Amino acid sequence: MAAVTSNQEKAGPSICGYHFQWLALLAKSLLELARQAKKLGEDDPRRIINSLKAGLSIILVSLFYYVEPLYSSFGVNTTSAVMTAVVIFEFSVGATLGKGVNKMLATLGAGALGLGVHRLATLSGKTGEPIVIDLFVFAIAAMATLARIFPRLKAKCDYGLMIFILTFSLVSVSSYREENIQKMALERLLTITVGCFIAILVNICICPVWIGEDLHNLVALNIEKLGIFLQGFGGEYFEMYEEGLPSKDRSFLQGYKSVFNTQSREENMANLARWEPGHGRFRFRHPWEQYLTIGSLTRQCAIKIDPSLEIPSQVKEHCTMISLECGKALKELSSSIRMMIRAETTLLHIGNSKIAAENLKSFLYQACGKKQTR
Amino acid sequence: MAAVTSNQEKAGPSICGYHFQWLALLAKSLLELARQAKKLGEDDPRRIINSLKAGLSIILVSLFYYVEPLYSSFGVNTTSAVMTAVVIFEFSVGATLGKGVNKMLATLGAGALGLGVHRLATLSGKTGEPIVIDLFVFAIAAMATLARIFPRLKAKCDYGLMIFILTFSLVSVSSYREENIQKMALERLLTITVGCFIAILVNICICPVWIGEDLHNLVALNIEKLGIFLQGFGGEYFEMYEEGLPSKDRSFLQGYKSVFNTQSREENMANLARWEPGHGRFRFRHPWEQYLTIGSLTRQCAIKIDPSLEIPSQVKEHCTMISLECGKALKELSSSIRMMIRAETTLLHIGNSKIAAENLKSFLYQACGKKQTR
Repeated sequence: MAAVTSNQEKAGPSICGYHFQWLALLAKSLLELARQAKKLGEDDPRRIINSLKAGLSIILVSLFYYVEPLYSSFGVNTTSAVMTAVVIFEFSVGATLGKGVNKMLATLGAGALGLGVHRLATLSGKTGEPIVIDLFVFAIAAMATLARIFPRLKAKCDYGLMIFILTFSLVSVSSYREENIQKMALERLLTITVGCFIAILVNICICPVWIGEDLHNLVALNIEKLGIFLQGFGGEYFEMYEEGLPSKDRSFLQGYKSVFNTQSREENMANLARWEPGHGRFRFRHPWEQYLTIGSLTRQCAIKIDPSLEIPSQVKEHCTMISLECGKALKELSSSIRMMIRAETTLLHIGNSKIAAENLKSFLYQACGKKQTR
Repeated sequence: MAAVTSNQEKAGPSICGYHFQWLALLAKSLLELARQAKKLGEDDPRRIINSLKAGLSIILVSLFYYVEPLYSSFGVNTTSAVMTAVVIFEFSVGATLGKGVNKMLATLGAGALGLGVHRLATLSGKTGEPIVIDLFVFAIAAMATLARIFPRLKAKCDYGLMIFILTFSLVSVSSYREENIQKMALERLLTITVGCFIAILVNICICPVWIGEDLHNLVALNIEKLGIFLQGFGGEYFEMYEEGLPSKDRSFLQGYKSVFNTQSREENMANLARWEPGHGRFRFRHPWEQYLTIGSLTRQCAIKIDPSLEIPSQVKEHCTMISLECGKALKELSSSIRMMIRAETTLLHIGNSKIAAENLKSFLYQACGKKQTR
């Protein structure tokens, strides 16, 4: 008996210990989470505002449940409004508008088509009805799924096609059981429209995030990164290499490498920016696709400037001159994009770097030529 | 009167002409669409099969409407099953499983939390109820929206978080009007589970598309592209340049550039591949993240091999040797990844190319050195 008690006593604190350890671990990871959230919020405070906006739009839609005259007009279909507001609400105006318009148009089209199929199916009697409905649902769902592979359609209305399949299947299949399918489809369309409008209004009216502006700044930032790298390249890079610093201390040279990974992000942003109405200096039909051209040229440029660690010291001077002047030109281009003004001195820097490049070329050819003729 | 008739006669054919033009244009664009669809289908026949699978899964779910005992057990909530099957169904097994598991877990968690909030809200009377519900909905929706910005959570359960917000808002807000909210939430969970299972079963059992295998092949293909480029570089590139062919005829050299744009695609594929069960030579915990390492090394390699058009003819021989041997080594690495075997001769080719590189380096240093000392 004494042995058992002592065993329990031994087990007691150790189990408690485990509990404390477990609690400490939980507290630690929660703290870590809070720390990360704070950092992400500081990096981009619009994220915090966005999450509050998302909460607000759901609250506004929920009023359709609480306020009697609103609820009695929509009834059970009010769920569609809540679902729509949650699904439509995105970080940027472009994404929210794109999803909203896609959802409304797809619901309208698919609802009408579903009602048409219902009419056709009722002609074939109660046993034939589900077969006719299913034939149409199969054919149209398969075709719409296939349509989603076209790159153009995928970029512009992938979400719309999914909603089209969803609404069409829902309306046609429900029509088998539902007495008044027309009323249901109409109510669904109305509630979805209400949900869309609330989400879009909240998104645009409270601290709107324009994805077009983000694209504009991203493209300018990428050019600036190359400029900073090239300007620093000559001075710091050669010095550090000569001082024999380990390669990890040269990590500042890696900054421009992030330029390589932005292509798909830029394409997505340009697609979403097309939905945005005019604002500030960006008009409605701002040439967004030209940012993609600039972005792809920036990446081509980044490929060319990837540095080799072993540049003979004899060509150092030429290289420093070229990279310095290119860097200045790129930084000016970047700020001229940012400000939307034309920079006059860029051509001067480009000219200087061309002269330096010619000097380097003639030096190298002379050197190699001399070697061979000997 | 005669003038009017002649006007009408004039207008008649021209309007007809417009109609014909319009019809011809429509027919032309439909033909073009069919041609593109055929080409996309030939490029990847799995797309065609996938769209038929998507249609089939909706048909299977629709049986819940048509078959009496099934319909009577779920009732109106059967709509959730149709919606789930449409939304969950994706091209690959990984994406479908990921979305399905996310949807089921999020619905379960959010449903339970929603019921809890409903209990809490009923304690505060009929007037206090909507206020308490809305406070919780606002707080939880805002927090879950904020959680979606964490890169790790976004990669793994972005969809789950959205469904969590959706279900939680739906259950808590509906609880204000619905008499038997518990029954509704349970039926919703059941129908969603049924929809998920049907979509997942159809996706896995009929010609499954494993995204892990696609990632495996993509990584191998990218290495192979670099190999093909390097092997062809020495021979064809120098010849074409010497023959003075215009740069558009050298477009075959651009093939490897597609390597640069696959990073985000690879990351997405690796995230989805984690959901896939073991199949063939890929076990359940296949080290998918290592493909990302290989992919990023491939891109670093591609940056290095971007060719300059002006290589002095004196170093041509060395360059040809280096690129030929590197190309052979890369092609062998690619096929050894594809076959999952170890290639023995790769090291030999790498050794050869290292020797050629040393030769080139000493040639260049000697050349430049000689130039300066003179």
